[in-house]
Amino acid sequence: MGIKIDINCDMGESFGLYKIGNDETIMNYVSSINVACGYHAGDPHVMRKTVELAKEHGIAIGAHPGFPDMIGFGRRRMLISEQEIKDYITYQMGALREFASISGLKLQHCKPHGQLYMWAMSDATVAKAILEAIAEINPETIVFALEHSEVTEIGRQMGIPIAKEGYADCEHTDAGSIVPIRTHAAAGDPDERAKRVVRMVTEKKVISDAGNDLDIDCQTICVHGDTPGADVTVKKIADALKAAGVEIAPVSSFM
Amino acid sequence: MGIKIDINCDMGESFGLYKIGNDETIMNYVSSINVACGYHAGDPHVMRKTVELAKEHGIAIGAHPGFPDMIGFGRRRMLISEQEIKDYITYQMGALREFASISGLKLQHCKPHGQLYMWAMSDATVAKAILEAIAEINPETIVFALEHSEVTEIGRQMGIPIAKEGYADCEHTDAGSIVPIRTHAAAGDPDERAKRVVRMVTEKKVISDAGNDLDIDCQTICVHGDTPGADVTVKKIADALKAAGVEIAPVSSFM
Amino acid sequence: MGIKIDINCDMGESFGLYKIGNDETIMNYVSSINVACGYHAGDPHVMRKTVELAKEHGIAIGAHPGFPDMIGFGRRRMLISEQEIKDYITYQMGALREFASISGLKLQHCKPHGQLYMWAMSDATVAKAILEAIAEINPETIVFALEHSEVTEIGRQMGIPIAKEGYADCEHTDAGSIVPIRTHAAAGDPDERAKRVVRMVTEKKVISDAGNDLDIDCQTICVHGDTPGADVTVKKIADALKAAGVEIAPVSSFM
Amino acid sequence: MGIKIDINCDMGESFGLYKIGNDETIMNYVSSINVACGYHAGDPHVMRKTVELAKEHGIAIGAHPGFPDMIGFGRRRMLISEQEIKDYITYQMGALREFASISGLKLQHCKPHGQLYMWAMSDATVAKAILEAIAEINPETIVFALEHSEVTEIGRQMGIPIAKEGYADCEHTDAGSIVPIRTHAAAGDPDERAKRVVRMVTEKKVISDAGNDLDIDCQTICVHGDTPGADVTVKKIADALKAAGVEIAPVSSFM
Repeated sequence: MGIKIDINCDMGESFGLYKIGNDETIMNYVSSINVACGYHAGDPHVMRKTVELAKEHGIAIGAHPGFPDMIGFGRRRMLISEQEIKDYITYQMGALREFASISGLKLQHCKPHGQLYMWAMSDATVAKAILEAIAEINPETIVFALEHSEVTEIGRQMGIPIAKEGYADCEHTDAGSIVPIRTHAAAGDPDERAKRVVRMVTEKKVISDAGNDLDIDCQTICVHGDTPGADVTVKKIADALKAAGVEIAPVSSFM
Repeated sequence: MGIKIDINCDMGESFGLYKIGNDETIMNYVSSINVACGYHAGDPHVMRKTVELAKEHGIAIGAHPGFPDMIGFGRRRMLISEQEIKDYITYQMGALREFASISGLKLQHCKPHGQLYMWAMSDATVAKAILEAIAEINPETIVFALEHSEVTEIGRQMGIPIAKEGYADCEHTDAGSIVPIRTHAAAGDPDERAKRVVRMVTEKKVISDAGNDLDIDCQTICVHGDTPGADVTVKKIADALKAAGVEIAPVSSFM
Repeated sequence: MGIKIDINCDMGESFGLYKIGNDETIMNYVSSINVACGYHAGDPHVMRKTVELAKEHGIAIGAHPGFPDMIGFGRRRMLISEQEIKDYITYQMGALREFASISGLKLQHCKPHGQLYMWAMSDATVAKAILEAIAEINPETIVFALEHSEVTEIGRQMGIPIAKEGYADCEHTDAGSIVPIRTHAAAGDPDERAKRVVRMVTEKKVISDAGNDLDIDCQTICVHGDTPGADVTVKKIADALKAAGVEIAPVSSFM
Repeated sequence: MGIKIDINCDMGESFGLYKIGNDETIMNYVSSINVACGYHAGDPHVMRKTVELAKEHGIAIGAHPGFPDMIGFGRRRMLISEQEIKDYITYQMGALREFASISGLKLQHCKPHGQLYMWAMSDATVAKAILEAIAEINPETIVFALEHSEVTEIGRQMGIPIAKEGYADCEHTDAGSIVPIRTHAAAGDPDERAKRVVRMVTEKKVISDAGNDLDIDCQTICVHGDTPGADVTVKKIADALKAAGVEIAPVSSFM
């Protein structure tokens, strides 16, 4: 049997009149989307439309909860308490779940956004708060996380399914983290990215930002939708994976 | 068999450090609460705590969605589209439903807040948008409305269960509306209010603000929690109803 | 002496990561800008950058206050009180004035945004509230308004300088209003718009949406920056005006 | 000549329907107020009313800018950039300055709020950003800060007037900071607080939370207005100071 991989992308980040990303095009190439829930990006109208679009494309949806910080797009760490983290996750997942529900869909996964994601990867308290909130809602929700992270470690202990992520457009570090794309001319041009992703998936190897060859185990590949040329990049990645005999499918279908 | 009536009150309107209402006391006397959902009042922490408190008291919870206007507390009409109304209802009900769900509860009802409520009573388009949103989510959700209103009329046509409201602390008008409490020294002192409610429930009669004796049919009595002395008023009303042999119970238990 | 005209455009409508408009290009062709103040669009960082850019271009700045409604971009009427209108104007003008002040600039004018503008044109109470707020702040602030409007009428009575606006990309109506660009395929292609503006300025005539030839008196021409091709349109208009011997200059320089 | 001291209190922290503090009473006993600017608390209506009330009482006003975080009341640190800090300060000070201006008043001082204040005390980068923003607006603005802090140190180097604060209702630490009132049963009952303040002002001494007798030099005493009994506490402090021959006056009158 061949290798299967999921491709995920942040979606529904537009807000009112403000547009971000090229959701309609990118949905042709991904198998899972992380939908902004109105806290760091998105709004109720955008959420409904994004869910409807995902339904048309037959792809899986997940929540993409973030800090309540629209001006900062959820990319500024806010030192909030564990209970606040849990309540914000519950609120945002619930709002998205209702839009999914009226379209006859379920939430496959949850991937925290921006600094909430990065914070959770390295802070056990934050990781635990997020995982507890998700487990209270539905313990079958798959959580997206880096392989070498507090979320993955604690999630395993709690029995929560974790889908480990490989990043198409951020470099991985020797320490197991990633270099945020905004601080680094990351990970090459579209063709290089496609090759890199194929290697991550088929050989389970990736060159780190320090130039070392790392082992990597991932079930889903993240492509950012708000970087210039994201639509070209994601198409190249999808084509290269298929050419390598890899099947692209929602992570829930093979985990 | 005796008469049954529901008493409802807006709850969970606190926000961050800001406190409104005396929820802990009032929950002793009501059977249903309308929980603010973070748009005109409330926040995720308050929502969780309010749901937990309702669970302890064994009372029914409903969503209380409003305009996205915290400064105006949802009391300023916003001329938004039907689709915007629907999406805001879905978002807010979903967020609350998740908090209910993690406490093992379901949403009994939905009562739009403030100017969204008043607008819906007299505008068929708005009424229809709200009812459609609620029906898409769950057609068994009971909707709270004035007897002589577009919501009641259209809800009946759509087959949506409507609980008609009598107001304890606002005067009813001959035309079937109410006089918002903030523009009128309304409906007497706590004792007078209690007598008035008993008459509404047992005789199905109420004196209008114009002094006429109106027929009124209601399944739930609304008491506002943010008016001074609300905790005293609601206790007097509950006591007077019980003394008159009326049973106070969540509206879903007898509709 | 030749004819002088001002060209104004809304600017600084970006917000956080969200971009709207092509401010850097358009500033080459306009003489006055209306800067969003963080209520319906814009944020403090965008405000500072927009003011700095205007300073580099030597063009005049004005406040563009709107409803507190970022999701609706200030295009949804909110039924707020006169005092609320005044306080929101004061707040927004003050915030922008500080950014102007640290760049050594003054506010030339104020133009309310979106539905606040449209509401003020036809509602004397709203017009008066806005004009009073502006006059309290600085009675020399020029207010932008349609010729046949409550703002122009009441402004004259109050002794507030009014700059009347001709619209490059919205059609004028026989009744003296405009057809919002978003509900009407308005006012032709860039070349037609340029001819139309030249005629408004040099002949004081414009064909209404009903096909009638109207008299029009304007001191400033509004071009919308968020319509596709706005940068091309505004360049064509500026070129056509210059070719017709019209001098483009901030309205404060010739009123 | 006798000793003079300023008493400052946060004011204008109400928001829409939400009330915090007992501003009308407290204004009888303080000489300077720190007015919330709509980011962590307050709104344009509250700002106007607060400024008008201060004018009636003849007390000095200052800006009290905070993080853009109404749910968290500005008490959650947000890891924002220096430029963001500066722009938020400019925006908030400008908005308040306009309300002061239409009442014929000037801003005496600026005191950052909550976590922005605490962060600035110990972080030189944050302190510098805040001081630069204030200096760009008006270098004569007095900045309130703890004696042993980065703000006081860097402010001196920049030539910005600093008013050092003694805290009436938080304990000072040996390291020169304070113990936030919310994490500590602080600084005794109203009578003890009054005695403590008199000693800080007349003897320049205070007992730290560790029980040591510290030297303290302060020009203004901070009393929190949102703690229970704040109105009683501030009256006792004012009475005790007067009884000790200390004159209470705005800090700008004697610095």
